[in-house]
Amino acid sequence: MVQPNIPSTKLPRIVIVGGGFAGINLAKALKNAPVQVVLLDRNNYHLFQPLLYQVATAGLEPDSIAFPLRGIFKKYKNLHFRMAEVRSVDTANNTLDTGIGEIKYDYLVLCNGTNTNFFGNEEIAQHAIGMKSLIEAVQIRNYVLKQFEESLLFTDPEVIKSKLNFVMVGGGPTGVELAGAFAELKKYILPKDYAELPIQYMNVYLIEAGPRVLAGMTEKSSERTKEALEKLGVHVLTGIGVKAYDGQTVTLSDGQAIRTQSLIWAAGVKGFPIEGLQKEVLLPNGRILVDDKNLVQGTSNIYAVGDLAQMTNDERFPKGYPQVAQVAMQQGKNVGQNFKRLLNKEPLKPFKYKDLGSMATIGRNHAVSEFAGLKLYGYIAWIAWMVVHLLNLMGFRNKMVTVMNWVYRYFTYDMGTRIIIKRGAANIVKLRQTVTDIDPVDPAKKQLPA
Amino acid sequence: MVQPNIPSTKLPRIVIVGGGFAGINLAKALKNAPVQVVLLDRNNYHLFQPLLYQVATAGLEPDSIAFPLRGIFKKYKNLHFRMAEVRSVDTANNTLDTGIGEIKYDYLVLCNGTNTNFFGNEEIAQHAIGMKSLIEAVQIRNYVLKQFEESLLFTDPEVIKSKLNFVMVGGGPTGVELAGAFAELKKYILPKDYAELPIQYMNVYLIEAGPRVLAGMTEKSSERTKEALEKLGVHVLTGIGVKAYDGQTVTLSDGQAIRTQSLIWAAGVKGFPIEGLQKEVLLPNGRILVDDKNLVQGTSNIYAVGDLAQMTNDERFPKGYPQVAQVAMQQGKNVGQNFKRLLNKEPLKPFKYKDLGSMATIGRNHAVSEFAGLKLYGYIAWIAWMVVHLLNLMGFRNKMVTVMNWVYRYFTYDMGTRIIIKRGAANIVKLRQTVTDIDPVDPAKKQLPA
Repeated sequence: MVQPNIPSTKLPRIVIVGGGFAGINLAKALKNAPVQVVLLDRNNYHLFQPLLYQVATAGLEPDSIAFPLRGIFKKYKNLHFRMAEVRSVDTANNTLDTGIGEIKYDYLVLCNGTNTNFFGNEEIAQHAIGMKSLIEAVQIRNYVLKQFEESLLFTDPEVIKSKLNFVMVGGGPTGVELAGAFAELKKYILPKDYAELPIQYMNVYLIEAGPRVLAGMTEKSSERTKEALEKLGVHVLTGIGVKAYDGQTVTLSDGQAIRTQSLIWAAGVKGFPIEGLQKEVLLPNGRILVDDKNLVQGTSNIYAVGDLAQMTNDERFPKGYPQVAQVAMQQGKNVGQNFKRLLNKEPLKPFKYKDLGSMATIGRNHAVSEFAGLKLYGYIAWIAWMVVHLLNLMGFRNKMVTVMNWVYRYFTYDMGTRIIIKRGAANIVKLRQTVTDIDPVDPAKKQLPA
Repeated sequence: MVQPNIPSTKLPRIVIVGGGFAGINLAKALKNAPVQVVLLDRNNYHLFQPLLYQVATAGLEPDSIAFPLRGIFKKYKNLHFRMAEVRSVDTANNTLDTGIGEIKYDYLVLCNGTNTNFFGNEEIAQHAIGMKSLIEAVQIRNYVLKQFEESLLFTDPEVIKSKLNFVMVGGGPTGVELAGAFAELKKYILPKDYAELPIQYMNVYLIEAGPRVLAGMTEKSSERTKEALEKLGVHVLTGIGVKAYDGQTVTLSDGQAIRTQSLIWAAGVKGFPIEGLQKEVLLPNGRILVDDKNLVQGTSNIYAVGDLAQMTNDERFPKGYPQVAQVAMQQGKNVGQNFKRLLNKEPLKPFKYKDLGSMATIGRNHAVSEFAGLKLYGYIAWIAWMVVHLLNLMGFRNKMVTVMNWVYRYFTYDMGTRIIIKRGAANIVKLRQTVTDIDPVDPAKKQLPA
């Protein structure tokens, strides 16, 4: 019989759901505190999402941006990690229903973040793909490389274009960085690996419904980013929304249609709160209303931290804080410290966001960043971008492998990890087929037993 | 309409099936020769199989032992690569039936190697797993790490043992290297990551039906290898065969039973020749009878090279050459040069095998190798093993990432890539479930369109 087997102690038990930026910073703040910390995650690793787009574009191996959670906390005597899906919470009895059984909590902290938000458009949701998980990034890599391979097998230019056109929706950092990386695939990889393909058949589009890309930055930065992307060959369409996408053609709000089999949706995220919370605290975007200490409204021992939390204690962010790593890290740390204050009967501290600014890389030698009034562009911003991301990437091995890949790419203009790791890779990818194609079980042989 | 779209020229077309050691060395030998080379492979990468076991045991990322075939041949004007499954050959019309359509050939070279051989034991084939492909290695890594995680969820020692016992069948280099790596997982990772698990519950077994491990080497080397493995804590059972395995318990020929949910089968390989060849040239082990120039018997323009070929022109190897990389590389090179001789109307050269000896690593600081009469053991052999493998590993990036991982592991005793990349990873692995678990498509979102 499967059960969590978490030792019961006299210490108060804090259950953290999710090992992202919020969850691990919270757990770190509780090192050696007189509490029992139970960390739950559906995966056994912490994912460094800011570099996901490089995995999706064959620039980094998936293993280099993921770090085993057990590795992070191996020296934490008071922490127990379990790999588990959390299904629902019973707030009356302070228990979680999970895939590995029932888990009691004294304090519950929800750090399980967000998922792609298709804003209820079922057709788009069915044909487009988001890029929030490592598996999605690997899937995108496999799929994109396969589209190149398949383009060689057709003669109708329209079919080839539909395979070589890549459309990013959403002009935030993810959309910008993806568009830049795809443009570099066209510039550096296509002519070398697929000399047989007419390069003009490949086009990269970045579509933003709002007036400008990187809306979180100044107008000047947005303008420079747009220029840089266009210089790279990206078609940047602002003030234009996506009306429909049937898997073959995307129709835009201005009526124009683009043939593409690859629509990557980076236009929004949605929190997915677990079952059992009162409806009043849930917003339409899935975020959970919390007070300035991340306490879920109407509860005394349930917290929501990071992307999932909706906190409006800062006039700079009347609609809640941006769903970025910085907020999650700082909130996680503050909630952790508040738990220690709670134990020492000290007054709790409300969350104060220290905005470290934001940055996005556009491509080789080019990024844009805004730090506390200091605006950087081009090469210097690109170097800053790399340094900041490396410092925040967890694990010495990951840092080294990542640097290695970047240095290699810088000098060779090569994308190092252009391999398609999926079952039946040679089959033509069809919607239904994809499922089994990517399933890494060799039909010729058999799976491992349970 | 899918079609290969390979330009037709006046040049003779040589179609190579398989981008392994045989195929790429053959293609390299034909660089700039007045022929059209068509290389077909079901994957878009060349796999360095000798390091597969390190991917399976979380020591290396899959991307570091695979190299894109297009990267290898990007400067080859006369070579066309297509990702395709080859279904059958029509020797009367010199055509191949493939997943991307019909491909004509003037000369056909089969380099598609071997697959795991369960010697017709259906029950074992159904529950055990081989390790011949990159996907299988990744699957083993995911599965093994998941077994550790799941061991925490049970209290019955017998169940825990069945999850922590790992049984390798086959005392060749693969079995030896896997067993050593598993023993190091027990020694260095288990106590650190899973302090809650009683370490004595994990046991590693190496089962060899023959009288000794590494039968290809001298008795002395076999003996030393056995001792070294036992020193690492591996239970080495020689002269004992596997009678049955139901997915829970493996029954040995001497009657003893071992509870395990992980049986890795490295006891033999089997060629898989494509449909359409005459039955007379096929041996029961799937190898194809060829003459001393790798020409398939009874044909004038079909060759088989490497593991797939059965050549008996060397009294040292009356039962055919060993199915190792060295033979494949040398045969591929010789066949390629013979094609050039053929074009120049020069006499063809029969294959002469230059035996460079063999080696196997047992664990940290310990390997065994035999080079032309020179026998090395322990540290020096281990260094030699690393140098030889690095030199043969394709691609500068791969070499660097691999060195990086090895150096990191050497100093930290850590396995760097202990992450489970599969969908629904948190679910308890069941035989049927595994398929969808590992499928990297997020059910919450949708797949990419075809």
